[in-house]
Amino acid sequence: MKARAPYPLLSKIDSPADLRRLSDDQLPAVADELRRYLIEAVASSGGHFGSGLGVVELTVALHHVFETPVDRLVWDVGHQCYPHKILTGRRDRITTIKKKDGLTPFPTRSESEYDTFGVGHSSTSISAAVGMALAAQRKGDDRKMVAIIGDGAATAGMAFEALNHGGDAEPNVLVVFNDNGMSISENVGALTKFMARATSSATLNALRQQAKKAISKESAIGRAVSRLEEHAKGMFVPSILFEELGFHYTGPIDGHNIPQLLAALRTVKDLPGPQLLHVITAKGKGYAPAENGPIEYHAVSPFDPEAGLAKKAKSGKPTYTDIFSDWLCDMAATDERLMAITPAMREGSGLVRFSKEYPQRYFDVAIAEQHAVTLAAGMACEGAKPVVAIYSSFLQRAYDQAIHDVALQNLDVTFAIDRAGVVGPDGATHAGSFDLSFLRCLPNMVIMAPADENECRMMLSTGYEYEGPAAIRYPRGTGMGTALRPELDTLPVGKAELRRRGSDLAILSFGALLGTASVVAEELDASLVNMRFVKPLDVEMILDMARTHDAIVTIEDNAVAGGAGSAVAECLAENGVVLPIMHLGLPDRYLDHGSREEVLSDAGLDLPSVRAAILRRFPQFAGKASMASAS
Amino acid sequence: MKARAPYPLLSKIDSPADLRRLSDDQLPAVADELRRYLIEAVASSGGHFGSGLGVVELTVALHHVFETPVDRLVWDVGHQCYPHKILTGRRDRITTIKKKDGLTPFPTRSESEYDTFGVGHSSTSISAAVGMALAAQRKGDDRKMVAIIGDGAATAGMAFEALNHGGDAEPNVLVVFNDNGMSISENVGALTKFMARATSSATLNALRQQAKKAISKESAIGRAVSRLEEHAKGMFVPSILFEELGFHYTGPIDGHNIPQLLAALRTVKDLPGPQLLHVITAKGKGYAPAENGPIEYHAVSPFDPEAGLAKKAKSGKPTYTDIFSDWLCDMAATDERLMAITPAMREGSGLVRFSKEYPQRYFDVAIAEQHAVTLAAGMACEGAKPVVAIYSSFLQRAYDQAIHDVALQNLDVTFAIDRAGVVGPDGATHAGSFDLSFLRCLPNMVIMAPADENECRMMLSTGYEYEGPAAIRYPRGTGMGTALRPELDTLPVGKAELRRRGSDLAILSFGALLGTASVVAEELDASLVNMRFVKPLDVEMILDMARTHDAIVTIEDNAVAGGAGSAVAECLAENGVVLPIMHLGLPDRYLDHGSREEVLSDAGLDLPSVRAAILRRFPQFAGKASMASAS
Repeated sequence: MKARAPYPLLSKIDSPADLRRLSDDQLPAVADELRRYLIEAVASSGGHFGSGLGVVELTVALHHVFETPVDRLVWDVGHQCYPHKILTGRRDRITTIKKKDGLTPFPTRSESEYDTFGVGHSSTSISAAVGMALAAQRKGDDRKMVAIIGDGAATAGMAFEALNHGGDAEPNVLVVFNDNGMSISENVGALTKFMARATSSATLNALRQQAKKAISKESAIGRAVSRLEEHAKGMFVPSILFEELGFHYTGPIDGHNIPQLLAALRTVKDLPGPQLLHVITAKGKGYAPAENGPIEYHAVSPFDPEAGLAKKAKSGKPTYTDIFSDWLCDMAATDERLMAITPAMREGSGLVRFSKEYPQRYFDVAIAEQHAVTLAAGMACEGAKPVVAIYSSFLQRAYDQAIHDVALQNLDVTFAIDRAGVVGPDGATHAGSFDLSFLRCLPNMVIMAPADENECRMMLSTGYEYEGPAAIRYPRGTGMGTALRPELDTLPVGKAELRRRGSDLAILSFGALLGTASVVAEELDASLVNMRFVKPLDVEMILDMARTHDAIVTIEDNAVAGGAGSAVAECLAENGVVLPIMHLGLPDRYLDHGSREEVLSDAGLDLPSVRAAILRRFPQFAGKASMASAS
Repeated sequence: MKARAPYPLLSKIDSPADLRRLSDDQLPAVADELRRYLIEAVASSGGHFGSGLGVVELTVALHHVFETPVDRLVWDVGHQCYPHKILTGRRDRITTIKKKDGLTPFPTRSESEYDTFGVGHSSTSISAAVGMALAAQRKGDDRKMVAIIGDGAATAGMAFEALNHGGDAEPNVLVVFNDNGMSISENVGALTKFMARATSSATLNALRQQAKKAISKESAIGRAVSRLEEHAKGMFVPSILFEELGFHYTGPIDGHNIPQLLAALRTVKDLPGPQLLHVITAKGKGYAPAENGPIEYHAVSPFDPEAGLAKKAKSGKPTYTDIFSDWLCDMAATDERLMAITPAMREGSGLVRFSKEYPQRYFDVAIAEQHAVTLAAGMACEGAKPVVAIYSSFLQRAYDQAIHDVALQNLDVTFAIDRAGVVGPDGATHAGSFDLSFLRCLPNMVIMAPADENECRMMLSTGYEYEGPAAIRYPRGTGMGTALRPELDTLPVGKAELRRRGSDLAILSFGALLGTASVVAEELDASLVNMRFVKPLDVEMILDMARTHDAIVTIEDNAVAGGAGSAVAECLAENGVVLPIMHLGLPDRYLDHGSREEVLSDAGLDLPSVRAAILRRFPQFAGKASMASAS
């Protein structure tokens, strides 16, 4: 997308140096153009939307006041980096974001010198900026380090750890605390309440309490109250917490007021030691539908900016997230012990319906994966049956808790792991490439990977009924479209399913790539096993396949290194069985973003690649393929 | 150890019910006996010491006021659980703690119904207690949940996450905040400063500042000032932080004053919602040497209570921790870019010397593993060369940071991973069983496991010089006693070392078990390779061994599941090589505590077990063993 006629200033900004040549007076106009450009761009191509709109003025002011890239801007999470990318030489490529070979959806060091710290998961920015500042100070380098973090991201423990250390180590670092009352969902947690309490007048507070009781947050009145409350934050300075942690506090200031921003940034820029600037912004600012619907407009598909988002056309096939969502409510209806936990991913993890139908058993703990998992462990100790809904890559944040608090104690916690395997557009930070490797080494874990939707539902029931730690990991998006059985049937633990009896070659498939494996198995007249369980493995089935075939191929959408295939190889070794084996799975490199299909293809896991890889390794089976196609 | 004559009250307490039959007036005498018994017991058998002494009165009061085990006490970390174990039916077995088949060193659910939540890592107790409370409330169960957490453990992000959620979810839970100004080392971080600031009078504060400048904390005056300050904490109520997080605050009270404790606990016991009781204690209370030397007396070997701890007799052989300690200082002397980071494990990780010699490049971030790793990533971005010193099992806390912030960005961070593999007395929570599995699936990581001390030193240099993420994982305790070369030599990355050329069988050894492997290799006339690198593997060496031998055995002190041996199998599969392979390593179960040797034996990794396992699998090589012994 080229910035032309309607963008007289923006079209001339090819780097922040160009921006810095403009006078203060011109910056509101730049912000205006930037916002319009952003709306136009994201409406045409889709992407993260509301966060970027909220930081338009802040981004302009930061790049104007600081000497980027010599000074370092560290954006937390990165949802809000589009304006930054537009101002730092990537204006004309902004519509390629998230697309294969296009811009990455988050700041990425390899993409631009202005992207000082790669990100995608939240709450890392303060740690990174403190580290940068301490390193720079030790070598006598006086460049400035600025972390920009939202209040949503501040709930994660690592942000607190960083503040606690940063306030003590006293680096020359500026934390811009971007307070918009939102993460992706509404913020939860006492910190949010604290901010709200500290910054509302008694009257507003009473109004808010009443409003909470009387009306839903999503109604127009609810939103108006919220808005008022936002603006009332200036009435009391919530400096206590940050000052006490050792940060010099400035604010709160209006994050959409450029003169205020410039003045504040210029003041704090040269102050020594840890500085915190509190900025109040509105997510979605300047585009009314996004201001009023920050959750829906957090990330969007292409839409008409005049008309707003189209009602989501329900596609024919439910996603795996939908399968989980319905299963959770169905199981909760039959079992009062079920409790569901999400670390701030109500929408993404499919918990909206549950949160409405079972509010007493629904726990959004904010961005706090560690607490989410140990909370579940505590619940299980008292006989509840907690289900932790979590993305594969975010479970990495709670790895020790999964080991030390759940698996080691063999507690009855079910992990519903969404976005496992290849995720696609969100790129390497969000890839669920490792869960099978990092979970299957843990004693006591039961691990399942469904091949289709109905199996996913059955596995959720199986993991739930299993009285110990169980993980079901399923991919992003839709599956094969199998018909769902309404029952809550379970599967026998550790039993695989023989899908096709062929000869010579046996393909052992774990999870989402069964469709691909199935086509190849037909072509090569190979046996095909839907393994279902990564742990415990169906040893009997594996040994039977080994005895009756000349070779084994394993396939999975997890890293080959330590993945499910390697578990099969270990099983063969343990049982003294020797035969040729080949592992298909994710390669030993981080995968760039693209559509899920493109990334699978890049990883060599699309149908043609899988077929070719098997025939390259086992050319002796090629004849069967041509015979099959001839017959 | 039997509690007899000198313990008239304690000897009759076989469970907390017995304790609860005593009157309030008798409890100080119980505490007195309990303290004397604890000193006698730990002096005779060794173990965690100072933390237990600090909570004697608190433990007595808690079990007197609460109806344990119906009410749940959740001890954080668990260092302080000895008095609890003594009062809950394990009095006579307390000296078996940490020993094979003896009591576990921490609360353990399988050991006692009074141990409500297994632990060993810090900062989990609030999450667990909140989970228990929410689960109990949902089923209308009104038992009480009490988390007891030290101020040292409160620096970890997950404790903050739990407070943030707990204050919002409003469970009926009591958090006893045991404020002793210590973790294992002195506490660091702004939170500590905040507590100190909030609780000292201006005069004391000034005194403290002067004292800080004038005298070291370890001097007698320094200690006296500290002590005074401790006691002055009652002068100001540091309730702000906790109240604002939604917890009702009570305190601070003297944690060694039983009437005060009873009164406070009885008051807060029946209050609804999240309660926080602030208790001031002294680590090591009642045993002067431990009060004055809380770091040395944190955990002790057997000693004479009259004489105090013997000066640590330097054993002939340095530990791996010592090797790291010296290497770090040597490397720092040659390279100003080196910075060392520890999450509150200065003593355990061997950073005492470095912290004194290079205070400007030494960063103790408190118990904050996540921040430690991302801080390192930030430093690396600015051209520093950070070394993160961390225990294997604590690195689990920073797994996402190792992936998302370090490995994915291919940043130059060196991980010095202590306590890898079998740890022994500290038991399953501290086992370093999984690091090879969870690290080797990550693209960009270089992973090394030294076979001896000199190799450890060389690997540290190698990882440090390597311009990307590198991990060196070494075991607890001493090694073979190899002579150390003072140079900072490096090893070629990804190259193994052929230690012995034999025939028929090739043993591929990763790390600390090379000595065992070497004996067996001699006996069986097998080839022996010291693999050195888990990643990248020496593919050439592996293929050469496969070509020239009939079978391969891999050996490592990591879980077989996904471990180094499975990487060898993947390598063979990828290269289309088929031959018998056997993996020796840690089994798929959590290992109980014992000496390192006992645990290795339990795991089947002692010499007789290794020999027997290989001959069981490959009986054809048995002849060579007998030939060898005959010749």
